[in-house]
Amino acid sequence: MKNKLTIVKIGGNVINDNKALTSFLTDFASIEGLKILVHGGGKKASELAAQIGLTPKMMNGRRVTDEANLDVVTMVYAGLLNKKIVAQLQQYNCNAIGLSGADANSIKAHKRVVKDIDYGYAGDVDEVNDSVIKLLLENNLTPVFCAITHDKNGQLLNTNADTIASEIASGLTNHFHVVLIYCFEKNGVLKDVKDDNSIIENIDSKSYAALKDKNIIADGMLPKLENCFYALNNGVAKIIIGNPSVIVNKVQKYTSLKL
Amino acid sequence: MKNKLTIVKIGGNVINDNKALTSFLTDFASIEGLKILVHGGGKKASELAAQIGLTPKMMNGRRVTDEANLDVVTMVYAGLLNKKIVAQLQQYNCNAIGLSGADANSIKAHKRVVKDIDYGYAGDVDEVNDSVIKLLLENNLTPVFCAITHDKNGQLLNTNADTIASEIASGLTNHFHVVLIYCFEKNGVLKDVKDDNSIIENIDSKSYAALKDKNIIADGMLPKLENCFYALNNGVAKIIIGNPSVIVNKVQKYTSLKL
Repeated sequence: MKNKLTIVKIGGNVINDNKALTSFLTDFASIEGLKILVHGGGKKASELAAQIGLTPKMMNGRRVTDEANLDVVTMVYAGLLNKKIVAQLQQYNCNAIGLSGADANSIKAHKRVVKDIDYGYAGDVDEVNDSVIKLLLENNLTPVFCAITHDKNGQLLNTNADTIASEIASGLTNHFHVVLIYCFEKNGVLKDVKDDNSIIENIDSKSYAALKDKNIIADGMLPKLENCFYALNNGVAKIIIGNPSVIVNKVQKYTSLKL
Repeated sequence: MKNKLTIVKIGGNVINDNKALTSFLTDFASIEGLKILVHGGGKKASELAAQIGLTPKMMNGRRVTDEANLDVVTMVYAGLLNKKIVAQLQQYNCNAIGLSGADANSIKAHKRVVKDIDYGYAGDVDEVNDSVIKLLLENNLTPVFCAITHDKNGQLLNTNADTIASEIASGLTNHFHVVLIYCFEKNGVLKDVKDDNSIIENIDSKSYAALKDKNIIADGMLPKLENCFYALNNGVAKIIIGNPSVIVNKVQKYTSLKL
């Protein structure tokens, strides 16, 4: 039987709130067994960009990354946020090791091909280096990934954190029984975005298609669920979407996904 | 017989010059056998601090680090510079992994005790985690350390890069035959700072004392040499101080240190 591996992706809204982040990291550190954390951090990057006079550009919910903005996200994601998270996890006796995709060549990507929109230095993942991540995990290290990858040709690339979580989860299914948890500010996938209790508790491929048809799942939730079904199709055992307390409190409601 | 381990520390002046950095990283990647890179990066941090309206404060050649400036150096050292260096080394087929001292709890430090001057979030190293660094090295990974450590209590600390190189070198002498190379913009320790050819080719404890007495070694060179003799006293086999080409070109002149 494969060892269980829990992969948690935490969104920018939790990271931007020190108290919520501390609470989350305490919980994360307490997860038993092998684990990986993937974090976003959009808001802080926009703040720094504004401070140095850059205007962040968004297209279809994704950041357009010119060279100056790539430097900003590299500083904020791989530097400030990643190292603060790692230091805090170390305090809670979780032996965290912060990584970008360039580190140990752990995630190779390519610059997104320009069709209608040029997203600049945005990376689409080609390959997750499962053996090096396995090596770290099996030596009691907890990888903490930020949303930066590289092209193995010297170029860093800004990459969607949800996608990174989904790709890492998919890449490790050969070695582990992978559970993937997406934590964000809502309690799960909602029927009505304005009603935080309208959680859709179970979604499978069939109901997903219907929810899309009825436009109940739309906007930012669409790429998140696409990532989920990509991971399920690649052998990820279980996916949960919910608020951060979902990682320790099993009784609350959340969204559970299967094929 | 112990395996050879080459530890190279590269200073901010090389990092600030893209062409010089590329040349250095190409050379570094070509070093055979186990290796570690330690980098500084002061100038870029000062630039970012100025851009966001902070005034860098220096005391006795060391940065005084308040919380805002700690964020800046964490962004620049652990984020921008570390990841750019790692991505570039990956391009040259050197399997680099970027680390702060918080990552894998590799370097534990404490906030410098206030005597006359409060250096703020400046870290003095307590302990190098030799076993985790050995693990990485023995799995063909090349650690790239930036000048940030942590106190294992959630606090990141700004730490002198020369000291980090010296502490890592000292910490690994039980496992490896360690050669430590300090690269900077000069050709070695100079008799006359204005004459780049006045290289002192050999320094030992005795001649070092005399050079200090005569004030030939002073200012910024003093702490560098203190770090060197600390490492030699801890079993480091060989220390070289020179310009970046010293790591591949053995015929030029440089400063060689022994006890």
